[in-house]
Amino acid sequence: MKEIAKLAGVSIATVSRIINQNGRFSQATEERVNQIIKEHNYSIDSSPSNIWKAQKCNIGIIVPDITNPHFSALILQMQMALFYSGYSTIICNTNESEILEQKHVKTLKAQNVAGVILISGNRYHAALRKYPVVYVDRPHLGDDDDAVIIESDNEYGGYIVANEILRAGCKNIIFLMSKIKDINQRLRYNGYLRALKEHGMQERIEYIQNTENVSIYAGKASITSIIQKKLSFDGIIATTDTLAAGAYLALREYGIKVPEQVKLAGFDDCMIADICGTGITSVKQDVANMASIAVDMLLRQINGEKISTTKRQLTLTLSRRSSTDSSPLN
Amino acid sequence: MKEIAKLAGVSIATVSRIINQNGRFSQATEERVNQIIKEHNYSIDSSPSNIWKAQKCNIGIIVPDITNPHFSALILQMQMALFYSGYSTIICNTNESEILEQKHVKTLKAQNVAGVILISGNRYHAALRKYPVVYVDRPHLGDDDDAVIIESDNEYGGYIVANEILRAGCKNIIFLMSKIKDINQRLRYNGYLRALKEHGMQERIEYIQNTENVSIYAGKASITSIIQKKLSFDGIIATTDTLAAGAYLALREYGIKVPEQVKLAGFDDCMIADICGTGITSVKQDVANMASIAVDMLLRQINGEKISTTKRQLTLTLSRRSSTDSSPLN
Repeated sequence: MKEIAKLAGVSIATVSRIINQNGRFSQATEERVNQIIKEHNYSIDSSPSNIWKAQKCNIGIIVPDITNPHFSALILQMQMALFYSGYSTIICNTNESEILEQKHVKTLKAQNVAGVILISGNRYHAALRKYPVVYVDRPHLGDDDDAVIIESDNEYGGYIVANEILRAGCKNIIFLMSKIKDINQRLRYNGYLRALKEHGMQERIEYIQNTENVSIYAGKASITSIIQKKLSFDGIIATTDTLAAGAYLALREYGIKVPEQVKLAGFDDCMIADICGTGITSVKQDVANMASIAVDMLLRQINGEKISTTKRQLTLTLSRRSSTDSSPLN
Repeated sequence: MKEIAKLAGVSIATVSRIINQNGRFSQATEERVNQIIKEHNYSIDSSPSNIWKAQKCNIGIIVPDITNPHFSALILQMQMALFYSGYSTIICNTNESEILEQKHVKTLKAQNVAGVILISGNRYHAALRKYPVVYVDRPHLGDDDDAVIIESDNEYGGYIVANEILRAGCKNIIFLMSKIKDINQRLRYNGYLRALKEHGMQERIEYIQNTENVSIYAGKASITSIIQKKLSFDGIIATTDTLAAGAYLALREYGIKVPEQVKLAGFDDCMIADICGTGITSVKQDVANMASIAVDMLLRQINGEKISTTKRQLTLTLSRRSSTDSSPLN
């Protein structure tokens, strides 16, 4: 590679990028380098040991559910940032299963990836202790003080979205959350409780809906059962946009109008919030910023840097849409 | 593994699944096997050569855009089917880039995966000739007669969705497609032309919209420009649900009502069609069936079977929703 670089008048890194089709280089440079490789009969060493080294150009991303647009948007941002730094991305979907998550960790280790980004989930992986790892959107657990974590201020997110629903005049608010052991869900709930308290309102158990998972269909089933039970409500706060979309589908099926009869809000501000119904108010997670910080924290570890600030928390804002407009409820 | 299997009274395959945390086994069996490993001081060989073999439990899926819910739904179905057959799935997103696709093919080969599923894309990969490979939703190219392909009847899909829009009374129909060199897009267009002809209507160039890609935002930009040009239209056929959702966003922004003023239809029948606006009529791709056939065709190749029917084509149906209801246009 050194000789090729010299002959082509480019850096070794560029030659490596061209050979491995990693990162950025111009077509002209690629042609020049390939010409030199051909002319001088250089052969690319594709022996297992070299392949093994080449695998150090891969980053694994473990994600709970790629069909959730919030996660797929996050992955795409990360993948592009990693690509421009010369890394390929391997995506592993756990489908919320701990067995699958464990399995993916093993697979990625066996593949000798340069680093791992874990999105969501609750587990700390001792098996990854010596690896460059960034945990995204997962809570800080007690036994991993050196784990590098980036998360959103979920309690505050729950607080601002509850205030929005209260401001819109709702008195009987359903809180639609998943019962998965996800501390982020719990923190969003805590924020909602804080807002209720400030408005002098009590939590009512029958208005808390726990779903099996955060899918659209779980959200739809949950609100359908509420409607069938004839529980009276005028607002729904969902802890994800997927659950909010499911709630919207149930309301639409029963001819209940958003926002005229029920105000509705979600969390994540992914594309679902934009296209669902006439638009759903949602707590915006700054996916681009989160991805860029996560990738930066990972690359610094890969480059042997010691991360001084291992915990980063991003603030959240509200994206208002028509689902919480201030027209009187009727 | 043989000895452990004998002691535990289970098959070698079960021991392998437990050690590799692959596929199905009961908790009781897992505990028994782990107990035997512990009691007899068996050690799991995690040397590179063994890891190398273990990697034969991985399948690579290459996909153009994981943020498109049609593709993520397809991947999830494939992943679960593969998991129950003892395989882990590595997902590689190309973001519609040929460079990235080439790179992913190299990476998966270097990782010694057991097989590869390529979703969409136009390329035939000579590098994968000796690998078990299934091409999903890609056209049959001339030079790869032995390539295993499963696809939808896209021409027919274009035909039935055009008939639906025509039946709803539309006279000035925008055909919203991506200009990417995707033969499936072209086939859908051909089906639309066939329906037009049967209705004695002519194709009009100014009503064909070519977008840079099939993203929601490309669809929105395209229809926004049409509205600003004051081109009169009463129907939109989009070649993907993402483009249809983008069209819907543009119409909503300008206060143009679906279906009262404009009828709208998409393609794929993914979750977007369900939640967007009051629901968008869409050509249903049978994702579950497609995934299950693709996985079956791949596993049969991995097991050394010669596939006799290398080309499979699935038919398409229409999922009607309110966006093409038959209320008169006004």
